[in-house]
Amino acid sequence: MIGLAALKAITFDVFGTVVDWRTGIAGEVETLAAEKKFVVDGELFADAWRGLYQPSMTRVRDGEIAWTVLDDLHRMNLLQVLETFEVDQLSDDEIEHLNRAWHRLDPWPDAIAGLQRLKQRYIVAALSNGNVSLILNMAKLTGLPWDMVLGAEIAGHYKPQPEAYLRSAEILGLEPEECMLVAAHNGDLVAAARCGFQTDFVPRECEYGPGQTTDLVAENDYDLVAGDFIELSQMLGC
Amino acid sequence: MIGLAALKAITFDVFGTVVDWRTGIAGEVETLAAEKKFVVDGELFADAWRGLYQPSMTRVRDGEIAWTVLDDLHRMNLLQVLETFEVDQLSDDEIEHLNRAWHRLDPWPDAIAGLQRLKQRYIVAALSNGNVSLILNMAKLTGLPWDMVLGAEIAGHYKPQPEAYLRSAEILGLEPEECMLVAAHNGDLVAAARCGFQTDFVPRECEYGPGQTTDLVAENDYDLVAGDFIELSQMLGC
Repeated sequence: MIGLAALKAITFDVFGTVVDWRTGIAGEVETLAAEKKFVVDGELFADAWRGLYQPSMTRVRDGEIAWTVLDDLHRMNLLQVLETFEVDQLSDDEIEHLNRAWHRLDPWPDAIAGLQRLKQRYIVAALSNGNVSLILNMAKLTGLPWDMVLGAEIAGHYKPQPEAYLRSAEILGLEPEECMLVAAHNGDLVAAARCGFQTDFVPRECEYGPGQTTDLVAENDYDLVAGDFIELSQMLGC
Repeated sequence: MIGLAALKAITFDVFGTVVDWRTGIAGEVETLAAEKKFVVDGELFADAWRGLYQPSMTRVRDGEIAWTVLDDLHRMNLLQVLETFEVDQLSDDEIEHLNRAWHRLDPWPDAIAGLQRLKQRYIVAALSNGNVSLILNMAKLTGLPWDMVLGAEIAGHYKPQPEAYLRSAEILGLEPEECMLVAAHNGDLVAAARCGFQTDFVPRECEYGPGQTTDLVAENDYDLVAGDFIELSQMLGC
């Protein structure tokens, strides 16, 4: 146990941990449906789209398809979901705009204030499976104050593959033990801990809506468990 | 000519353009000399160290040695300069600390204020031959408000190789024409322009001290020539 005194960089999972993808995607889908005169349940659509997220990355992880950034996986998955929901009214430009809804997601209410506090003492970096431009565009729109955007595209590997964490630490010029991953997902934290990262679980109990059944609590012995990013900053004396 | 209306990201050369390496390195060398009781002209030492910068990157560019981050090239070059200046009083830790003087360089007086203005409208990113941790540590120490650190380590190629610019644009999700390089060095700007980047020359007439003879003026037809970063922000309506 290296301990919090060694901590130099705090890295963050983004979808679900920093931003509320379900509300954002559902809202954009329903706005588009009203404009284009089709009927859809935005939340079901968002869940279906997100449901194809891990399977599509698994195809990359397993080498079934070559390296593909998340924007492009999202688009492949979107075409499939549009077909499932029998939405065929959209032009290519409208599909492209909808695909970039992932660039326009809003942060949870505590995220920006918490990051701003943490940033005073630590490097704060995104460590997401989202491509850099997605995470950067989101940051510019919403004010998320990243010092650096790391993650899958920079490492060339999707989490939870160990290279995603280890290459991120290497690029920061740090030992894994000097880095912490903050995530709302037990699986991500377990993978990061195996690579030597310190870990903080932040529950996001409505990430998947009011009926969420997974990732409600910390299922393992993490270095920290914080209610939100502001509590995390207080725990770290920021 | 795409024009300034298309501009979405402004990328910056760092050593010499954003930070004053000569004053910083000379100062750290002279402080160390006073502590360790050796005699050295800090500016001559800084010039000699910087003089080995391009030749060491050329060895990487030419494939003579494998990819090596700038921290490690700096260290190889430092050992050589210490020998030339007959400095043999330093421990490994002291040499390592001196090598990281490049992480502690101060920005030119206009740099932070200019970047803060530009950041309101554009992505502002470092596009340096410095490794990411070097540029990030410098940013955290001095307050340089980068949205992203791009450059040689991310691209796996040292400027002025075209991959350094093209891969940076690709990671930003932009066409080269939507990116601008700001630099105090004509050679860097020519290489970026060949890749399709827009260009802005900012003269730093004392980068190499009062006797500087190169890069005093814009030697080509760049998109912009700005006296400093604040003037650049004004030219871009920020």
